[in-house]
Amino acid sequence: MMSTTVNGITFPRGFKAAGLACGIKKDSRPDLALVYSEVPAAAAAVFTTNRVQAAPVTVSREHIKSGSAQAILLNSGNANACTGVKGLADAKTTAGAVASLLNCRPEAVLLASTGVIGVPLPLQAILDSLSALTTRLSTEGGAEAAQAIMTTDTFPKEAAVTVELGGREVRIGGMAKGSGMIHPQMATLLGVITTDAPLGHEVLNAVLHQVIDQTFNRITVDGDTSTNDTVFLLANGCAGGEKINGGKELEKFSAALYQVASRLAHMIVKDGEGATKFLTIQVVGARTEKEAETAARAVANSNLVKTAFFGEDANWGRILAAVGYSGIDFTPEKTEILLAGLPVFAGTGLPFSEETAKALLQQKEVTVKINLHQGEAEATIWTCDLSYDYVKINGSYRS
Amino acid sequence: MMSTTVNGITFPRGFKAAGLACGIKKDSRPDLALVYSEVPAAAAAVFTTNRVQAAPVTVSREHIKSGSAQAILLNSGNANACTGVKGLADAKTTAGAVASLLNCRPEAVLLASTGVIGVPLPLQAILDSLSALTTRLSTEGGAEAAQAIMTTDTFPKEAAVTVELGGREVRIGGMAKGSGMIHPQMATLLGVITTDAPLGHEVLNAVLHQVIDQTFNRITVDGDTSTNDTVFLLANGCAGGEKINGGKELEKFSAALYQVASRLAHMIVKDGEGATKFLTIQVVGARTEKEAETAARAVANSNLVKTAFFGEDANWGRILAAVGYSGIDFTPEKTEILLAGLPVFAGTGLPFSEETAKALLQQKEVTVKINLHQGEAEATIWTCDLSYDYVKINGSYRS
Repeated sequence: MMSTTVNGITFPRGFKAAGLACGIKKDSRPDLALVYSEVPAAAAAVFTTNRVQAAPVTVSREHIKSGSAQAILLNSGNANACTGVKGLADAKTTAGAVASLLNCRPEAVLLASTGVIGVPLPLQAILDSLSALTTRLSTEGGAEAAQAIMTTDTFPKEAAVTVELGGREVRIGGMAKGSGMIHPQMATLLGVITTDAPLGHEVLNAVLHQVIDQTFNRITVDGDTSTNDTVFLLANGCAGGEKINGGKELEKFSAALYQVASRLAHMIVKDGEGATKFLTIQVVGARTEKEAETAARAVANSNLVKTAFFGEDANWGRILAAVGYSGIDFTPEKTEILLAGLPVFAGTGLPFSEETAKALLQQKEVTVKINLHQGEAEATIWTCDLSYDYVKINGSYRS
Repeated sequence: MMSTTVNGITFPRGFKAAGLACGIKKDSRPDLALVYSEVPAAAAAVFTTNRVQAAPVTVSREHIKSGSAQAILLNSGNANACTGVKGLADAKTTAGAVASLLNCRPEAVLLASTGVIGVPLPLQAILDSLSALTTRLSTEGGAEAAQAIMTTDTFPKEAAVTVELGGREVRIGGMAKGSGMIHPQMATLLGVITTDAPLGHEVLNAVLHQVIDQTFNRITVDGDTSTNDTVFLLANGCAGGEKINGGKELEKFSAALYQVASRLAHMIVKDGEGATKFLTIQVVGARTEKEAETAARAVANSNLVKTAFFGEDANWGRILAAVGYSGIDFTPEKTEILLAGLPVFAGTGLPFSEETAKALLQQKEVTVKINLHQGEAEATIWTCDLSYDYVKINGSYRS
C-alpha cells in the first residue's frame, strides 16, 4: 500500500471533480462542489443518526437505494436543514438539474450540504452555477472540490492510497470537511471517498460501515452530532478486473480504505475548533471492545479531561473519574494509566516528576493509555483538547 | 411554608455545627466542618454513581446502614479518593476520633471529603483539630460549616424553610458545595440537609431519593460525575410530635424538602465554574417524563448550546439538533422552541427580530422551552453556559 495526498477524490481513475463560488457564502469563498464518475459507480453511504435530518440526507437516502450513483453535489454555507417541504423540493431540484447536465438519472445524483440551518437554500444561485461547474469538471479537480466544502476548517482535507488487488493497481481517494462550525450554526462532518476498485454495492456498503465504525465514528470534538453528517463511497471499477466479493482481496481493500478514512478522520480532529492538541485515548485490557470503546469515549468527551490537556496538566484523576462514570464495570485498584508513556496511576497515584510530565504534555500529540487489566479487548478514540478558542468560535454571534 | 436563609443546617432544633482551618488548604482557608445532632437522628444519603468511589463514600455507605447517625465530618482540600487501603483506614480513624470526642458509636459518624484526588489525607492535621472543632460546635455554626466545605465556590450555599406539620412548626435547613473544581482535580457536589421533623429512616430515605431526583440530579455543569458526590439528610425529631409515615403530612414535608434542595441546587448552577448565565431547559409535551428528561439533558449538556448562550446567540438549530441526537423519538415538524418566551422555531424557523432576541438573551436567567407536542409529560434541567473562564479555571496547572 502506498500513500499519496495528490488529488484526493480524483486520484482514482474515471473520477472528475470541480469546485467554485456560487454566492452562498458572502465573501466569494468556494461553496459548491461536484464529484463525477465517468461510468455509473456502485454507491454506499453512512448518514447521521440524528433524528433531525437535513433535506439532502433525506433525498440521498432515497437515491442511494438503487445501489449506484454517478455524481455528488455538495455545498457549504447552507445546510438545507429544518427547511420543511420547500427544502426537500429545493434539494430535488438541484439533483434534477445536475442530472440533466450530466445526462444521467436524477436518482444517480447524491447530495450533501453543510452550513446555517433553518435558512432556505439559495436555490437560484446554485442553479445558475451548475453549468459552469459541470464544465469545470476535471481529473485534477479534487483539490478545488475539497476547498469548496470547507466551513470553519482551516485547511482542506484530502487523502489517497494505492493498493495492489488481483495483480492490478487500485486507487482510493477521499476528501472531508470537519467539525468546524459553519459560522456558527452546526458542526457537520462530510466525507466523499472514491475508488476505481471493482466492487458491488452490497460488499461496498458492508466495508464502508465497518471502516467508518473504526474511523469517523471513533473521533469526537464536542460530542454533538449534526443533522447533515454524511460519508459517501463510490466505486466505479475503472481499475478493471473481476468483481471483489470477499476473501483476501476484500481484506486488502478494507485495510486501504481504513488508511484513507482514518487519515481524513485524524485531520478533522487536528482541525477541531480551537484544538491545540491531538489526543489518542486508548483503552486496553478490557473484557469486550464495546466496553473499551465506552470507557475511551467517556474520557474523550469529558470537558474536564479536555481542558486539563489544554492546560498541559497531568490530571489523571479526571481520566479515572471519567472511566468511573462511563458505566462499565471495572476495578480501579487494578487499573493503570499512562500519559504520553509516563505511568501516573497503578491502582493508586504514582510519584512522577511534574517537570517530566509537563515536558511530555507540551507535545502536540499525546496518547492516553488506560489498561483495565481484565481482558484482551481494546479500542481507541481520537479527540482534541478544549481551549479558549472553542468557546470563542462557538460563542460568537451569527450576525 | 416560609423561607429563611439564616443558619442553614443549624436552623432546625437540636443541631450544632462548626468549621475551622486545620491546614489541609495551604492558605489558611477553612477546610474542616462538623455537623452534630444532640440526639441520634434518622439518616439517609445519596452517593455518587461513579464506579470509582472515594474512601469517605465507602465508609459512609457502611455506617449509614443502621439508618441512624449523630455527626457528619466534612473536609475540603483533599478528596481521599484513589488512596487505597490507607485512605480507608484514615477515613475510619477520623470517624473513630470524632465518635470518642462526641461520645457516640463510630458508626454514628458519617464522612464526606472534596478536593485533590490521589493524595493521602493529611490525617494528623485533621486529628489535631478535632478537639477544637467539637468545642466550637454551636447552634449558630451553620454558616461557618458552609464556608469550610467550599472549594472554588465563590459563595457559601445555605437554605432553610419552616413548614407546619401536625400543628407544629418543623424546620429544614441545608448547605452545599458546588461543582467548583478543587484546584484543579475534581468537581464534587456535597450537600447536608438537616430537619427536626420526626421521620423514620425508611421514609426519610424514600423522600430524599425522590427529591434528589428532581433537584440535585436535574442540574448539570459539565456532565462529569465525581468520585465523592454525596448528599446526607438527618432527621432528629426535635420538633416533637408523632412519627410521620405517609399521607398529607409526608407530602408537605416532601414539598418543603424540595424547596431547600432545589434552592441549593440552583445556587450550585449559578456558581458553576465560569458561569455567566443560569439556564432552565424545560421540555414539555413529551410522551413520558423520562423522554422529556433525556431531551432536556442532551440540550443542557451540549457544548454547542452552552457556548451559544455565552455568546447570547439565538441559535435554535443547536437546540433542535441536541434533541435530535438525544435518542428520543419525536417529530421535528411538530416541535416548537421558545427562547426566553420568544418563539423561534415551530416546525420550521420563525422570523424574529435579532435585536429583540439579543435583548432577551442578555438576561442573566434564560428559559429554553421545547414543546414536542406528542404528550403531556414534562421535565426541567438547570444548567449554565460555557465560558472562557470555564476553560481557564479547568485548564490551569495544579502547581
